[in-house]
Amino acid sequence: MRKLRIGLAQINTTVGDFSGNLEKMLRAVAEARSMGVDLITFPELAICGYPPEDLLFKPRFIDENLKYLDRLVEGSSGISIIVGFIHSKEDIYNAAALIHDGKLAAVYKKMYLPNYGVFDENRYFQAGDQCPVYVIGGVGIGITICEDLWYEAGPATVQAYAGAEVIVNISASPYHMGKGNFRERMIGIRASDNLTIIAYNNLVGGQDELVFDGNSLILDEHGTVIARGKQFEEDMIIADLDIESVFRSRLHDPRWRKETLLRGSESRYESKQFISEKFSDAPKPPLSAAQSKVRVLPGEVYHALVLGTHDYVIKNEFQKVVIGLSGGVDSSIVATIAVDALGADNVIGVSMPSRFTSEENKTDAKLLADNLGIKLLTIPIENAYTSYLDSLADTFTGTSLNSTEENIQARIRGNFLMALSNKFGWLVLTTGNKSEYATGYTTLYGDMAGGFAVIKDVPKTLVYEVAKYRNDLAGKSLIPDSVLTKEPSAELRPNQRDVDSLPPYAVLDPILTAYVEQDKSIEQIIDMGFPEDAVKRAARLVDTSEYKRRQSPPGIKITSRAFGRDRRLPLTSRFRGQ
Amino acid sequence: MRKLRIGLAQINTTVGDFSGNLEKMLRAVAEARSMGVDLITFPELAICGYPPEDLLFKPRFIDENLKYLDRLVEGSSGISIIVGFIHSKEDIYNAAALIHDGKLAAVYKKMYLPNYGVFDENRYFQAGDQCPVYVIGGVGIGITICEDLWYEAGPATVQAYAGAEVIVNISASPYHMGKGNFRERMIGIRASDNLTIIAYNNLVGGQDELVFDGNSLILDEHGTVIARGKQFEEDMIIADLDIESVFRSRLHDPRWRKETLLRGSESRYESKQFISEKFSDAPKPPLSAAQSKVRVLPGEVYHALVLGTHDYVIKNEFQKVVIGLSGGVDSSIVATIAVDALGADNVIGVSMPSRFTSEENKTDAKLLADNLGIKLLTIPIENAYTSYLDSLADTFTGTSLNSTEENIQARIRGNFLMALSNKFGWLVLTTGNKSEYATGYTTLYGDMAGGFAVIKDVPKTLVYEVAKYRNDLAGKSLIPDSVLTKEPSAELRPNQRDVDSLPPYAVLDPILTAYVEQDKSIEQIIDMGFPEDAVKRAARLVDTSEYKRRQSPPGIKITSRAFGRDRRLPLTSRFRGQ
Repeated sequence: MRKLRIGLAQINTTVGDFSGNLEKMLRAVAEARSMGVDLITFPELAICGYPPEDLLFKPRFIDENLKYLDRLVEGSSGISIIVGFIHSKEDIYNAAALIHDGKLAAVYKKMYLPNYGVFDENRYFQAGDQCPVYVIGGVGIGITICEDLWYEAGPATVQAYAGAEVIVNISASPYHMGKGNFRERMIGIRASDNLTIIAYNNLVGGQDELVFDGNSLILDEHGTVIARGKQFEEDMIIADLDIESVFRSRLHDPRWRKETLLRGSESRYESKQFISEKFSDAPKPPLSAAQSKVRVLPGEVYHALVLGTHDYVIKNEFQKVVIGLSGGVDSSIVATIAVDALGADNVIGVSMPSRFTSEENKTDAKLLADNLGIKLLTIPIENAYTSYLDSLADTFTGTSLNSTEENIQARIRGNFLMALSNKFGWLVLTTGNKSEYATGYTTLYGDMAGGFAVIKDVPKTLVYEVAKYRNDLAGKSLIPDSVLTKEPSAELRPNQRDVDSLPPYAVLDPILTAYVEQDKSIEQIIDMGFPEDAVKRAARLVDTSEYKRRQSPPGIKITSRAFGRDRRLPLTSRFRGQ
Repeated sequence: MRKLRIGLAQINTTVGDFSGNLEKMLRAVAEARSMGVDLITFPELAICGYPPEDLLFKPRFIDENLKYLDRLVEGSSGISIIVGFIHSKEDIYNAAALIHDGKLAAVYKKMYLPNYGVFDENRYFQAGDQCPVYVIGGVGIGITICEDLWYEAGPATVQAYAGAEVIVNISASPYHMGKGNFRERMIGIRASDNLTIIAYNNLVGGQDELVFDGNSLILDEHGTVIARGKQFEEDMIIADLDIESVFRSRLHDPRWRKETLLRGSESRYESKQFISEKFSDAPKPPLSAAQSKVRVLPGEVYHALVLGTHDYVIKNEFQKVVIGLSGGVDSSIVATIAVDALGADNVIGVSMPSRFTSEENKTDAKLLADNLGIKLLTIPIENAYTSYLDSLADTFTGTSLNSTEENIQARIRGNFLMALSNKFGWLVLTTGNKSEYATGYTTLYGDMAGGFAVIKDVPKTLVYEVAKYRNDLAGKSLIPDSVLTKEPSAELRPNQRDVDSLPPYAVLDPILTAYVEQDKSIEQIIDMGFPEDAVKRAARLVDTSEYKRRQSPPGIKITSRAFGRDRRLPLTSRFRGQ
């Protein structure tokens, strides 16, 4: 019976860390070898990390990548490897190396280059135009890279009808909420449509605004998941693939021959490329249930935020972070995420009360810090605020208090946090949520000041859900109950409430989703049943606060469209809320 | 004798300002009609403004564009028009409408979509695949859009060999220093290679980080410029094209027939499309020399900065700007540019001295403000600075003074400027130069705070050149001589000099150009003759200050690669200075 033992190394690479990435790969190869794995795969561009963006314009970056690919080839005795790298020949390609027993056997070049959303691959790469089937150990294997698999009748289909029994897809597919489920359905259909086993090896880890969620999958030719990698963690997934079953299924399927006939004429594949007669002869230890696993994780947004925060901080060589704690839900959840990502010793909270800060909020900030076991500094802003008002008194003569004075308070807090960052080397985590970034209900250089905006893509209503999830996980009120129940306020003037400036979040958030993520028009959103004034106000606020977002820190994408590279609007535009 | 009177309307459009753009076009059409123009052209995407970026994902934006195209068609009686718009059919295209006497006669779709540098056109548009020749009034006319003309043997060549005597190119080609000359050489070669007249209609105006420089050109079939539009200003260029001369030249050129034979088989053009028998019968007034002009302007960088500043401020509906004046060259040139762009009444200078500010600098700031005739506010930062030090004293116990305290001073100044902005609605212009942005020799939320960074892409050495140019233009020291001769200093600690932290600018700037704009490796730059330690230090500073630039205000691109969308580097990267 023809079998293939495959290993998917779901590793967390770092852009530009060639030696670190290689080290991880060599460790995974050693582990796979000890498990009798025939073929081990690594994610898209695993050699150099993904996405390298304009580093791809640096010839030395390409060179390093080739040098480290050679080292992986040297370490491949007795095993086959598929790994993503930058292929360089006249132009550059997003490519997969097929390595077999100490030799670079073949190079597959990605055919479908994504150039939408956060992706700019046409900016860098030429597309490949061939998708051969590689025969290793008598098994027909098709290699595809990420986007290639998302097109019906793409390379995987061509390869399947040309004899591939296993399609390997190496990916760097960024997370957004619910994408794992969608991806799994899509891959399942590709497998059953083409009666082929699919081994989908996704990247895991944070890279600037993106989190790659892992969630690697192996599906049989009926589209049934037979093994699954962890979400948001490194993992090695090993499974024995039943190749004969693919052959049997094809014999039984009435669609198969007709399709073969239909598609034969337009196939873009080259002739089969013979790589080796068999896989390694090394004996195979038995495979435990734990290594071939099916698992579903709840609260994926929370864990995406933890991973994204951890990786941004650590990959950028920070150890500690500092967070302004107001007693509100946003700063509370950010501090909690930071503690889960970095440990309580590496998180410093700062309470910066003003004349407008309520006792309740001071107490809640203190209680949260106690619950999390983090250090809490207290630096009142009153003196600085007074000195600003004094310094500006002459110039402001005859004007009345307005958002100017509110912004000054927020900016003093931003300055204190940045001063702590500068003095002690702590990264400032900012605490604004997506509803605030969308509407500009936030102060540039004030509460927006910092290196990383953890919940920038999390709407306020979802912030509450995530906080409740985390409390449930703890089995206690890690985030104090009063934080979750009190009315949201910026506390920059007496008795201020968010609802004085914004529609209630339960109304605002779905409007923002429709307007920002789905490009619906004002009219269409009103037709969905939302109040006209709320829709118009929200759209106007979104349109006119683009300049703030342009200068905002990076944050973690968790929705289908985040602010940042995912959404590129001009600052100068007369097109308003339509 | 076959003649065609053509008018190139070099207009300044605004993104999303459909009615404003239409109004400009109808005025130009009226002027052209009165001058007996047969064919008037407008820039790329003139209907909606360029570049619309992700506004293209909004169906209402596409709809408005089509509605306003219809209005232009309605206003086209007795004349032919070529205008850029978004064509929508199944997908969207960057297109040119050929309008003739009240009817939309044809649509050309851009074939080459730029997706490099600042361009993302593959993100939005499908490419066209046909380049017909249109026959109007017996003249064969080929339409191309911007990038189409930059490829040898592109659509213009196909059209020429298929009978086009005039190639119209409608463009939105962004300025960088010297690009006008390069462009003119390129277009000249296209004209003479294809023995065709080229009418190149470029956009003029600022849009966020881009300045479109106008510089429209009409060249005869030998590549000689016969008319030229102004640089950095709106203009209407009218010329009589000698079509018979094209025919005569082709008869005489030995390359012509051979090439026709060679290329005939691979042409992608459709059959000729007959639009009309003749141009309008309206009588033509004589054309004065002033309307058909050749002009060269010096100091183009200065004028690019003035236009870019004017358009960013005005198109975003600000009236006044505020600038922190330190007495240094950067803030002095920014204030001067602002005055030229907006008028002295609309520029407010702010002197914000500290204990470290020299008398010389205070005097120079005052002198500059007097020279420019602008209001100067003085707001010392001493009290606020002291209050910060007091508030942080406990937390900072046991630490020594370092850049933290320097940054606090810069951030207080940033806060004061933002407070003035918030209170009075003045836009803050920031004053950092490219050498500072490159090396991170600038304070995030401090001197980087503001809405628009006028000289962000101007290296320090060029800042001095531009300042001298402006003084020469004035015929006096508008910018005080001492500003141009004193040693650069941030004045954030006693006796501070830029050369304590950076290589001298005369050494630093060419290193930065090689590293940032040309992607040269450290080794290659050292081989160019620069000191190893300076090169390594500069490269390290560039690599490690990406996070500051990511949060920087937009500024005007004047080099071949500006920071911003032109250069997209990851924040998280272990690839360092190679």
